[in-house]
Amino acid sequence: MSHLSVHVPLDGGRAYDILIGRGLVDAVGAQAAALGAKAAGIVTDETVAALYGERIRASLEQAGLRCGIIAVPPGEASKSYACYAAVCDRLLELRIERGDLVVALGGGVVGDLAGFAAATLRRGVRFLQVPTTLLAQVDSSVGGKTGINSPHGKNLIGAFHQPRLVLADTAALDTLVEREMRAGYAEVAKYGLIADPGFFDWCEANWRGIFSGGPERDEAVAICCRAKAGVVVRDEREDGERALLNLGHTFGHALERLTHYESARLVHGEGVAIGLALAFRFSARLGLCSGQEAGRVANHLAMAGLPTRLQDVPGGSGDAESILDAMAQDKKVRDGALTFILARGIGQSFIAPGIGRDDVRAFLQDELRG
Amino acid sequence: MSHLSVHVPLDGGRAYDILIGRGLVDAVGAQAAALGAKAAGIVTDETVAALYGERIRASLEQAGLRCGIIAVPPGEASKSYACYAAVCDRLLELRIERGDLVVALGGGVVGDLAGFAAATLRRGVRFLQVPTTLLAQVDSSVGGKTGINSPHGKNLIGAFHQPRLVLADTAALDTLVEREMRAGYAEVAKYGLIADPGFFDWCEANWRGIFSGGPERDEAVAICCRAKAGVVVRDEREDGERALLNLGHTFGHALERLTHYESARLVHGEGVAIGLALAFRFSARLGLCSGQEAGRVANHLAMAGLPTRLQDVPGGSGDAESILDAMAQDKKVRDGALTFILARGIGQSFIAPGIGRDDVRAFLQDELRG
Repeated sequence: MSHLSVHVPLDGGRAYDILIGRGLVDAVGAQAAALGAKAAGIVTDETVAALYGERIRASLEQAGLRCGIIAVPPGEASKSYACYAAVCDRLLELRIERGDLVVALGGGVVGDLAGFAAATLRRGVRFLQVPTTLLAQVDSSVGGKTGINSPHGKNLIGAFHQPRLVLADTAALDTLVEREMRAGYAEVAKYGLIADPGFFDWCEANWRGIFSGGPERDEAVAICCRAKAGVVVRDEREDGERALLNLGHTFGHALERLTHYESARLVHGEGVAIGLALAFRFSARLGLCSGQEAGRVANHLAMAGLPTRLQDVPGGSGDAESILDAMAQDKKVRDGALTFILARGIGQSFIAPGIGRDDVRAFLQDELRG
Repeated sequence: MSHLSVHVPLDGGRAYDILIGRGLVDAVGAQAAALGAKAAGIVTDETVAALYGERIRASLEQAGLRCGIIAVPPGEASKSYACYAAVCDRLLELRIERGDLVVALGGGVVGDLAGFAAATLRRGVRFLQVPTTLLAQVDSSVGGKTGINSPHGKNLIGAFHQPRLVLADTAALDTLVEREMRAGYAEVAKYGLIADPGFFDWCEANWRGIFSGGPERDEAVAICCRAKAGVVVRDEREDGERALLNLGHTFGHALERLTHYESARLVHGEGVAIGLALAFRFSARLGLCSGQEAGRVANHLAMAGLPTRLQDVPGGSGDAESILDAMAQDKKVRDGALTFILARGIGQSFIAPGIGRDDVRAFLQDELRG
């Protein structure tokens, strides 16, 4: 089986590999056995379980591992305290010990939930990520952030826990609904916008190959994972540079919050797409980058079928003040000041702390008028 | 205020101090301010809140910090998923941010629960331990183990999360009920039995001063913290030597499990006391140490008012097979083999993996007959 590989050189025995290629779902058993595990608890959602559950089970059993499948309902609501407790208790019932593996099979929700369960079960068991969405392959399965939601906000409860291995089966994206594919693509484009202008050029030329499942797909996933891995290795706990990965997310998270995380209205990647376009237009307004570059960003995202304006949120985004309030609830807020990721151009993003509420309000008001 | 101090030299910016002395409860505010916190969420139980809650609040407010008190019901039942979720949500309501502090004020239950909440709130906020029982001062507040219970067993869910500071107010032990004092003393004696025969001699001569609140108390707490800190620094994640701290605990945990963690029947330290006596008698039976030394261990524990035999468990301990089954559920079990901490003499403990069930069963049967 040919595949691409990205090494994540974390210290303290926590280095791991991300393998990228078609058909890797069937390699889970051999890889788990190579890690010395005797048993695996597969955490997934009901949709993904129906597609890949039995293939992974067969792969694990063929490699001589005991295994059990724990399927939660699909969707963000499964990142709850109750679901977390249920998953942990099921993993204990399956007698998953410290040398065994928790396997996260699915998208970002499953990865976050399974990762947090793995981080805290017996104070930490090893886990293996098998991301099955584009978003999870390029973003949430790299970096070790795990967590669940509180009634007070998303991802407010969690842990840093690195996987032992990531198997990104790009063939799994063939069955992904178009909207999820587009949403994941917003994160792909983000890596170009943060610090890699050449990759953004490449995306403009090659994005259709990513969607259709050509070799561009594997290449794009590998480039994104490599970019994210580099940032994570340099700043694992998000004391600095890692915050750049939040380009587009300050606005995006606020929009998700205001639409009550109703995926019928807005999914994470769509919020990020609008957020990316807003971050560049806000940067242009502050005189940091040209309006032409901001336009190029929005055009490309729109070309890929993504929303780029507040008005694109079905049912509306709320007024400027509501968006500001929703941003202020972000867990990256320190002492009440707003921190944005802004850009001096495509591939030239930077952390801008202490942005005044008035500047943001005026910008949002103009956006809502426009 | 004069106090003793133990430094815990962990790497990666995680080194911290344990201050030991009378009246340190009133130093919480100044210490929290020195750490740069703007707010503190005090997690405690209702009993301890009534004794020290307002003193700590006054201390924090005087130092200019916002604070809130979160009091859970006293007892092991508060180490539940539901209580954990409630504590996290209250800390979020109190707007505890990453630079702020969670303060654990109380015994082991509160320390474990508050520590786990601190470890996972916003993927980790700093925390400060103010242990108010002897057990917590010498054991659970050092080492960074935090956690809650699952219906499948104690401490099966948790994280390693080091405090930023421990303030062990030895005057708080003046109000401790005698039984809790004795239970904590089992862990004090344990440090002598593990690797410090001189300290065990000292305990035999000075234990009454520890109970009565003389200078021996502060000295004993400091010696125990120093011993535990040394082990933790050398083996933080319990891959090796740290397991020695479980001397007496394999038997002890099984007895706690069999008495359903009903503190009316057996508290943790009492289980440990019986476990210490059993570990030495089992070692003697295996020809590892003399029967005379095993007798000396049991005599001293009994002198301090602690139970030392299976028959001392009110309502009985169950038969040998039940005890074996309860031991097999321990989270330190790997591949089903039983690992014990045994001793070649007082202060000469070692890790003994792969002990056969038959040897243990025969020993327990004799103990139950005896």
